[in-house]
Amino acid sequence: MKEITKQINEGLEKLRQEGPLIHHLTNHVVMNDCANITLHIGGAPVMTFAPQETEEMASLASGVVLNIGTLTEEYVEEMITAGKVARQKGVPVLLDPVGAGATSMRTSAAKRILDEVGVDIIKGNAGEISVLAGIDATVRGVDSMGTSMEPSSVVQKMAADYKIVAVITGETDWVSNGEDTYKVKNGHKYLSALVGTGCMLDSITTAFASAMEDRSMASVAALAVFGISAELAALNPEVKGPASFKKSLFDEIYNINGDKIEKRAKIEKLHQ
Amino acid sequence: MKEITKQINEGLEKLRQEGPLIHHLTNHVVMNDCANITLHIGGAPVMTFAPQETEEMASLASGVVLNIGTLTEEYVEEMITAGKVARQKGVPVLLDPVGAGATSMRTSAAKRILDEVGVDIIKGNAGEISVLAGIDATVRGVDSMGTSMEPSSVVQKMAADYKIVAVITGETDWVSNGEDTYKVKNGHKYLSALVGTGCMLDSITTAFASAMEDRSMASVAALAVFGISAELAALNPEVKGPASFKKSLFDEIYNINGDKIEKRAKIEKLHQ
Amino acid sequence: MKEITKQINEGLEKLRQEGPLIHHLTNHVVMNDCANITLHIGGAPVMTFAPQETEEMASLASGVVLNIGTLTEEYVEEMITAGKVARQKGVPVLLDPVGAGATSMRTSAAKRILDEVGVDIIKGNAGEISVLAGIDATVRGVDSMGTSMEPSSVVQKMAADYKIVAVITGETDWVSNGEDTYKVKNGHKYLSALVGTGCMLDSITTAFASAMEDRSMASVAALAVFGISAELAALNPEVKGPASFKKSLFDEIYNINGDKIEKRAKIEKLHQ
Repeated sequence: MKEITKQINEGLEKLRQEGPLIHHLTNHVVMNDCANITLHIGGAPVMTFAPQETEEMASLASGVVLNIGTLTEEYVEEMITAGKVARQKGVPVLLDPVGAGATSMRTSAAKRILDEVGVDIIKGNAGEISVLAGIDATVRGVDSMGTSMEPSSVVQKMAADYKIVAVITGETDWVSNGEDTYKVKNGHKYLSALVGTGCMLDSITTAFASAMEDRSMASVAALAVFGISAELAALNPEVKGPASFKKSLFDEIYNINGDKIEKRAKIEKLHQ
Repeated sequence: MKEITKQINEGLEKLRQEGPLIHHLTNHVVMNDCANITLHIGGAPVMTFAPQETEEMASLASGVVLNIGTLTEEYVEEMITAGKVARQKGVPVLLDPVGAGATSMRTSAAKRILDEVGVDIIKGNAGEISVLAGIDATVRGVDSMGTSMEPSSVVQKMAADYKIVAVITGETDWVSNGEDTYKVKNGHKYLSALVGTGCMLDSITTAFASAMEDRSMASVAALAVFGISAELAALNPEVKGPASFKKSLFDEIYNINGDKIEKRAKIEKLHQ
Repeated sequence: MKEITKQINEGLEKLRQEGPLIHHLTNHVVMNDCANITLHIGGAPVMTFAPQETEEMASLASGVVLNIGTLTEEYVEEMITAGKVARQKGVPVLLDPVGAGATSMRTSAAKRILDEVGVDIIKGNAGEISVLAGIDATVRGVDSMGTSMEPSSVVQKMAADYKIVAVITGETDWVSNGEDTYKVKNGHKYLSALVGTGCMLDSITTAFASAMEDRSMASVAALAVFGISAELAALNPEVKGPASFKKSLFDEIYNINGDKIEKRAKIEKLHQ
């Protein structure tokens, strides 16, 4: 655990020194939050809507977020273009398959991006990742309503099958690269009373991945930082509901440091 | 009044138990607020932009919000599709004709949706509803600048003519199903210093309508809950302007309960 | 200086009396913040996405914001249409060339709008304005990374070459109409930890320009009001990071008055 938090803290320091440009093709509902949180953790967010500049902007980026939360046919094409440019350049690409399993358009868009881009990291709830891993699950709107296999197994299967880093978020978070699997237990119940916390985590994960070679560890770092910031935010006596919690969460992301991470991180590496 | 608050409280309880999926085709400027407030009151928000999944997502929903605040030709088509699916399924559809009367595109889009979908509830300011009810009024941008008939009469005429529930918001709010008309006096001046409070109310009203058979009573419930939450938010000593008020308002929506509603509701049924 | 703050305070009073309708064709990432800040300073925001109503809505407006932060080809056409309508009517048009210099699409869109609309005010960071003034500079994403000439000279050259009011924002802000050049030193470091503060300033500047004949002075007024509100926000003991700062900033914009402006304004007119 000490070894893990040391890596996280070095990653955080590097991220803040480099200020990586994170290109977002993301959920329009929460894009303002994603942009702000990218800035707060130390990155520089950018978002584009025009197909004509997707390639040029992606080629400038140090990381790319692809989130299908508010997909259209054109936007999926742009995601594939941006993803390919980033992959060729060797910068990390994350896919969040929001609502895969809820509508057929989302399921097939997620599969197309997985196949054609070959993303580095896929991050979703248990339902979404199960559907893509070929495991029975129910997704209603953008919420996971139940899966037929334990998340710890789903995450490993997904990672192994696609040779990527897979992340499943929920009350407990899971990260796997197909061999090593990690469990992160930080967080707070208010996170589920807010829209788009998963999307915000996409931004933080990609920012860490741009600063850390090991994409599993970058994902673990993002989950721990986000969860710890949530715990610290909830300790604020001014927090009386999800909106005041959100304000404090963003402040805490900005103020997170190695000390706090070491003290509060609840990370476990699974023995197989 | 006791009878009314009892119905509201039962509706709130049912809403929170069921967690209805509320599909939004809404104003992009405030969609994040609408999504969060849907979650805070107890629903599950979803938003789609792609015509290819409108029908599928609408068929999963327990309520549909149609708000033309940032309409395009394509988006209006999607609204009509989603509205028809919901109507066939028997789940409530609400229309907010934002800016009807300000531009000809908005007026005709609102009329088309009214005619083709046959919505359950229409909710707007006095100017917007007057224009659609064929009464002289002035709308500038998205604001009502004056009408030639009292809102209490406009709301009743609109409801009777279209055989729907009509809601007019303002310093005083009005609800009518053409026969019974209600007046709600809860609220706070800061609500008018914030963008999109009307749109947020669309979400809350539709969430209540998914849990309450009586669409008039669901509309009254939403107005009372929103207005009471605003009053409670303004009592917070930390509130020093509209932004801190907004944070508190969202917290209060999350924390609203039957006790607070009973103590503060200012609802009146008009005798005719 | 006393003469300048007197003009600002008269402008603020006029702005609040008139409540000008400010039409926004702006960055979608921060449009909610722009709308709220327009309302807080005393204007009435409106936003449209449909080409069919651009002209009609622009003809109702008292000021128009054109911001290419999330441009598409269609949106640029709408900006040109809205800008031309406003110019013919004599109401102020502001251009924020977000990311000019970062991608070729942004540079050429900004140039087209400048040429075809003939905007009243152009406002950007040092990199963006330099690129448009034909001076060597580097823009990464939406951030200025360095220019080959002092901002005070860039702003004057831009204004003189295009016969417009030019504004460069940064730690120090600059305004010039080609003859007179002003320096504004108000502000706070947290502003750069938030997304879209430049876009918010577009809204405030256009609102002031709708109330003040002298577009340079309107720009100076907006910079001073925004910077002073930021300073006052940062004094709030509840502010612990950029998110709580943002809440306070918006409250302070709403609560700004002549007294605070006179006490804190740091404005200097350059002698040439």
